[in-house]
Amino acid sequence: MAETIIKINLNESPYTNDKVHNRWHPDIPMVAKVKPGDDFKVECYDWTGGQIKNNDSAEDVRDVDLGQVHFLSGPIEVEGAEPGDLLQVEILDIGTFEESQWGFNGFFSKQNGGGFLTEHFPEAQKSIWDFNGMFTKSRHIPGVEFAGCLHPGLIGCLPNRELLDTWNEREQGLVDTDPERIPELACLPEARVAHMGQMQGAERDAAAAEGARTVPPREHGGNCDIKDLTRGSTVYFPVYQDGAGLSVGDLHFSQGDGEITFCGAIEMAGWIHMRVNLIKDGMVQYGVKNPIFKPSPMVPKYDDYLIFEGISVDESGGQHYLDVHVAYRQACLNAINYMTKFGYTKAQAYAILGCAPVQGHISGVVDIPNACATLWLPTDIFDFDMHPNANGPTIAVDGAANDIPKAADLD
Amino acid sequence: MAETIIKINLNESPYTNDKVHNRWHPDIPMVAKVKPGDDFKVECYDWTGGQIKNNDSAEDVRDVDLGQVHFLSGPIEVEGAEPGDLLQVEILDIGTFEESQWGFNGFFSKQNGGGFLTEHFPEAQKSIWDFNGMFTKSRHIPGVEFAGCLHPGLIGCLPNRELLDTWNEREQGLVDTDPERIPELACLPEARVAHMGQMQGAERDAAAAEGARTVPPREHGGNCDIKDLTRGSTVYFPVYQDGAGLSVGDLHFSQGDGEITFCGAIEMAGWIHMRVNLIKDGMVQYGVKNPIFKPSPMVPKYDDYLIFEGISVDESGGQHYLDVHVAYRQACLNAINYMTKFGYTKAQAYAILGCAPVQGHISGVVDIPNACATLWLPTDIFDFDMHPNANGPTIAVDGAANDIPKAADLD
Amino acid sequence: MAETIIKINLNESPYTNDKVHNRWHPDIPMVAKVKPGDDFKVECYDWTGGQIKNNDSAEDVRDVDLGQVHFLSGPIEVEGAEPGDLLQVEILDIGTFEESQWGFNGFFSKQNGGGFLTEHFPEAQKSIWDFNGMFTKSRHIPGVEFAGCLHPGLIGCLPNRELLDTWNEREQGLVDTDPERIPELACLPEARVAHMGQMQGAERDAAAAEGARTVPPREHGGNCDIKDLTRGSTVYFPVYQDGAGLSVGDLHFSQGDGEITFCGAIEMAGWIHMRVNLIKDGMVQYGVKNPIFKPSPMVPKYDDYLIFEGISVDESGGQHYLDVHVAYRQACLNAINYMTKFGYTKAQAYAILGCAPVQGHISGVVDIPNACATLWLPTDIFDFDMHPNANGPTIAVDGAANDIPKAADLD
Amino acid sequence: MAETIIKINLNESPYTNDKVHNRWHPDIPMVAKVKPGDDFKVECYDWTGGQIKNNDSAEDVRDVDLGQVHFLSGPIEVEGAEPGDLLQVEILDIGTFEESQWGFNGFFSKQNGGGFLTEHFPEAQKSIWDFNGMFTKSRHIPGVEFAGCLHPGLIGCLPNRELLDTWNEREQGLVDTDPERIPELACLPEARVAHMGQMQGAERDAAAAEGARTVPPREHGGNCDIKDLTRGSTVYFPVYQDGAGLSVGDLHFSQGDGEITFCGAIEMAGWIHMRVNLIKDGMVQYGVKNPIFKPSPMVPKYDDYLIFEGISVDESGGQHYLDVHVAYRQACLNAINYMTKFGYTKAQAYAILGCAPVQGHISGVVDIPNACATLWLPTDIFDFDMHPNANGPTIAVDGAANDIPKAADLD
Repeated sequence: MAETIIKINLNESPYTNDKVHNRWHPDIPMVAKVKPGDDFKVECYDWTGGQIKNNDSAEDVRDVDLGQVHFLSGPIEVEGAEPGDLLQVEILDIGTFEESQWGFNGFFSKQNGGGFLTEHFPEAQKSIWDFNGMFTKSRHIPGVEFAGCLHPGLIGCLPNRELLDTWNEREQGLVDTDPERIPELACLPEARVAHMGQMQGAERDAAAAEGARTVPPREHGGNCDIKDLTRGSTVYFPVYQDGAGLSVGDLHFSQGDGEITFCGAIEMAGWIHMRVNLIKDGMVQYGVKNPIFKPSPMVPKYDDYLIFEGISVDESGGQHYLDVHVAYRQACLNAINYMTKFGYTKAQAYAILGCAPVQGHISGVVDIPNACATLWLPTDIFDFDMHPNANGPTIAVDGAANDIPKAADLD
Repeated sequence: MAETIIKINLNESPYTNDKVHNRWHPDIPMVAKVKPGDDFKVECYDWTGGQIKNNDSAEDVRDVDLGQVHFLSGPIEVEGAEPGDLLQVEILDIGTFEESQWGFNGFFSKQNGGGFLTEHFPEAQKSIWDFNGMFTKSRHIPGVEFAGCLHPGLIGCLPNRELLDTWNEREQGLVDTDPERIPELACLPEARVAHMGQMQGAERDAAAAEGARTVPPREHGGNCDIKDLTRGSTVYFPVYQDGAGLSVGDLHFSQGDGEITFCGAIEMAGWIHMRVNLIKDGMVQYGVKNPIFKPSPMVPKYDDYLIFEGISVDESGGQHYLDVHVAYRQACLNAINYMTKFGYTKAQAYAILGCAPVQGHISGVVDIPNACATLWLPTDIFDFDMHPNANGPTIAVDGAANDIPKAADLD
Repeated sequence: MAETIIKINLNESPYTNDKVHNRWHPDIPMVAKVKPGDDFKVECYDWTGGQIKNNDSAEDVRDVDLGQVHFLSGPIEVEGAEPGDLLQVEILDIGTFEESQWGFNGFFSKQNGGGFLTEHFPEAQKSIWDFNGMFTKSRHIPGVEFAGCLHPGLIGCLPNRELLDTWNEREQGLVDTDPERIPELACLPEARVAHMGQMQGAERDAAAAEGARTVPPREHGGNCDIKDLTRGSTVYFPVYQDGAGLSVGDLHFSQGDGEITFCGAIEMAGWIHMRVNLIKDGMVQYGVKNPIFKPSPMVPKYDDYLIFEGISVDESGGQHYLDVHVAYRQACLNAINYMTKFGYTKAQAYAILGCAPVQGHISGVVDIPNACATLWLPTDIFDFDMHPNANGPTIAVDGAANDIPKAADLD
Repeated sequence: MAETIIKINLNESPYTNDKVHNRWHPDIPMVAKVKPGDDFKVECYDWTGGQIKNNDSAEDVRDVDLGQVHFLSGPIEVEGAEPGDLLQVEILDIGTFEESQWGFNGFFSKQNGGGFLTEHFPEAQKSIWDFNGMFTKSRHIPGVEFAGCLHPGLIGCLPNRELLDTWNEREQGLVDTDPERIPELACLPEARVAHMGQMQGAERDAAAAEGARTVPPREHGGNCDIKDLTRGSTVYFPVYQDGAGLSVGDLHFSQGDGEITFCGAIEMAGWIHMRVNLIKDGMVQYGVKNPIFKPSPMVPKYDDYLIFEGISVDESGGQHYLDVHVAYRQACLNAINYMTKFGYTKAQAYAILGCAPVQGHISGVVDIPNACATLWLPTDIFDFDMHPNANGPTIAVDGAANDIPKAADLD
């Protein structure tokens, strides 16, 4: 029986738990120690640390304090790990807490976080997903149920000082190009609600002021939000510090490629079971800069797809040069529009793209001037047939009768 | 036995064949007529119309006349098709010509076309791939063999006048932002080597001057270069004109997501067997703007992957805002670097990413400021084990001993 | 959170738990009640009720009291179920107990149960499999680790009186053809160690004397030992009594087609989470005699196989007429022989075939006089490459150094 | 371009082609020679040599001369092959003839061949399947279309004298147990219509009198009728003679596990493209008695199944001991009965089980006295939904309106 080396209490604030942190900094003390070959469990808060509740109001999503995210469990010291090594992490399992059989998905207000389609969904909305064993469905979205593909949205090792400085400099540089933008261009260090683990006093305050936010994926992995980094996969992380310092959090029950709703996947609290090993000097030997991984042997077989194309001409007809971001947005909008023909509201369709195991492929990136992206919608997750046919679509669900709760922005 | 309604002769120039064209224009005359429910075959030139030869010199790739591409077979009239319909095309099969059991992949010179990694591979290179039944391998790239996933790189219906004008205007607008750029920002109409099918005289000349180039994917589909649009898939195309006017070409034996080498996939001449049907008024009924499709029940099971992450920080450390294009480029460069540890040259690794059934996923597009893209490299296509292990990589191939032919730019 | 409607205590004998039974009889009282649409959990003993221990001796397998098997949890009443209905059971999840992260596989002595290859493995042997999250491996079998495909070996509804009588008569008839045979031809009712749930007194004794043994699969399903009836699958069971009376047990962490080792799969205690619904009059409407089911969307992707053929000519050269049993035995023996070339003992190879997700296909049953069966061995479960190649096999494991414990028969 | 080393003419009798034979005998002369590493094509008659026609009468199936089957192309000499080697055969591709885009499936009369369900279908019936590229459908069976999984039903190397004698002795021994049985217990040598390839004169006559019939699968492979031995797979055959002597025929467009209709799969004429290599002394090194193989990377993804169970209690309630043959027959009958609820005739349902890529699994072979077999019916091949639901089945096809042609036995 694997030991649980980091425990949490869902009834207490993550700020009371000193084995949790919400910033990246080289000096955050290790909170547990394991050896190569060990397997162990780690418990994790949901990414917001409990700010979002299982109810039918989106006010908590509207009012979320994004400065707090993401609460990570760690860092964990791996004996013998040295800079330049690769830390092999086998994700042996991920699970939910018996008393917390639900997750949430939300669209942030454009005023507070936004999302991939924030121009189309500018106000906060929230759907709750109940877990039934391997499966999930939402009381806010009819006609859809699917098996989860549980994975950590965020996992990686502590940066060293040099890497931290690099991050802060380049992200500050980006913000400086348009400092007033809403949403902001990057999340810069913010001491206000930093949780620096077991750091104390002045050292803690200094680190909080410069600790990198956990929002973006970076060289070490971090918030990659890759739905395929699921239970059963094996990941190879760059190590920058002695002992590695592995931290993990932001567990997802399921997610679509792109995590387009930003808040995000089906977000949950839970636990993760891992086994670690080392490849000494692996970064140089294999030429690894960012993490690499092998997918799990066990993933849901939702492989009958309806595939939507998008090109880099935006909603207004604007021409963009090989812009995959714009192309994928068009593919998503095309899918949403299609789904409304079967009775879904646009918000429900958007939430499905964020939560279900949809694939997003980069299909063409060289045929100037248009990039082509494809959105793969798994059709077996619906309890009706949504393929096109000669008779046209049939209304299969009454989405509007029970739409996803929305919370208007406060003035 | 399905009838071949368009035939070609590989020994003659495509300009001699009036059932072929290389520009999109509403007035190109139909060259064949079919009814809903019919199935039929169409023969196709390779996309360059035979400019690239089965030899060991890349000079033809360097000197290619890109103004000529792509040679399409069609347009085919579908009885009863009207604007607003969806044309359902079942791709029943795709095949090679008995006498032409090979294809090519190339990197264009940065001076003449370029490609996704043209800064890293600025000069023309070419690999030849031999077909052995379902499988292919290249004399220029050791240690790799895989089954093809044959598909048309380019397929769609004729635009109407309004759509043509939209295309020309918005692409001209883009070029106008940086008219001297090399490579150019878009391929504008070019009468010089236009092939307008059965058009004649002044009408032909006028159309050649404004006919849209076939290079980018657009609303009608066109040059989508989607590797999953393979034999066995079913596609639903928007119809803009009476009779639809379906054209097809640019057949690929295999391709990776993104077709990153631009020239491109494993390019080939061959034939395609299709069955057509109509969904009347389908564009409105299903809310379809770009084509949608169902993938084939039959695709190669190369599903043991090694997955490389990339983020939108470029090779020089430059920070880009949620730029999937940059992120995917990093993932590709990471994969190339990794593959060199087993003995491949960088050019060989690049060619493999362009030719083999690699997947490119849009993994995260909301975690500001970094997009995250993943490159999925199928490991079963190699005749050695390329997974990381504690002992480090072993040189498995001697790539440099027989590298991909290169042709230096002429002054 | 689903309610656990039947609980067990691994530290107490199953005979102390009156929500458990080990015989099929129409009069066993219902122990819990659910409604169509409900989901709920049920805890289950391992099939032997704890007779087999986590140690390195096979004496418990040798001395097992097979009269006691299988301990089932139930019967569960489903409100509204009537004879002729189909009971739809969605297996939402199956799990292990935190304190019992292991399972066992054994070969019974030919004197006490035997097995598919009992002539080759006449003495009792036992391997212990440790669970590491989704995965399992055994300290008695090197070089192999795989993800589990958890499923109930035994599940079905109570028979009615007529069906019970049919079973007893036809199985008695078979035994009567060779009553002295060892192993016996069928397991007839045996009151000695019968556990009749909540039945009491004379009624209980009478039922114990005629209660059908749980060993074979029968019309109602029962001990089908189908590895694909896994978590995530949906099964449709015939209903013979008011209230249905669903019972379940014999949970497996993993199993190969045929469960050839008889004891059997990787046997475990654990829990199962189910949702029930009714198809009224479904047996007639759909013409269902035996259960039918839809497989899970989530199963391990161990799909690179090495496939062994067997024909119905036995080990001694004896010719059998279209006998798939003999053919499959040959395929299994062929696979075992092959695996020994890489260092396994025959017992280890046999255990792997019983435990890992091997497939057994009925490949030809009409080509007189030989049936052809195939054994599909998944190669990805091994940590070495076991495909044939021109250099011949390499010893990859030292199986004999730590073989599966064996217990000699007592005189 | 691979050379076609054996050609056939569909307009001429196979008896005119001396590169064809229909008996196994060590002395049949080699008709072509290849080297290890070579790839080449071989053309093949359908297994009956053209006896069955593309029409709507089953009289040809009723009157078939089964003494003639199977017409094989070969034997092919592989340079350097010696007894004890393994002959590695990569099946690079299989195809149809442009002028012969159809295949047949039939049930033989119980008086002339029979089949797996001959008691239920005692008279000859025939369905014709048209090929449309990768796909096939039958004018005799509505509502079903699927991609083919082309494979040779029969392939293997020439036996040596010792092996031939073994075959003849053991099969004669079986027939001797019930010489009057209809259908016969085995197909013994029959000189009447033997085709001994290039053998001549007295030597030919002697060989014809003792040449083993091609009907059953045997140690060398032969008529295994394994649907997974498809284009793209790699097979390792035992070699018994210098030069190996590889012969192949009985090509199938598609088949279900068991080939239960006996005539059989979707039978076709066509060509096969193979590459050969040798593993010297491989039979001993790998302990290989029967062929082993690796499946193709490319097979149809018809993986949404409805699964039918069967146990070894026969249609009359008779109890059989662990008899997989009986169990599979029940599973097949259960599936047939189920399919009739949607409008199929029993004959159509039977033909679908013989032709479509159904799986037959040996699910339990140790739970005395009942074996359990499962029949996996792929649901995506139907153009309607055939899953059970609370409303009961809907008639989706009018099978009786155009049933499979039948030919009554002649007196």
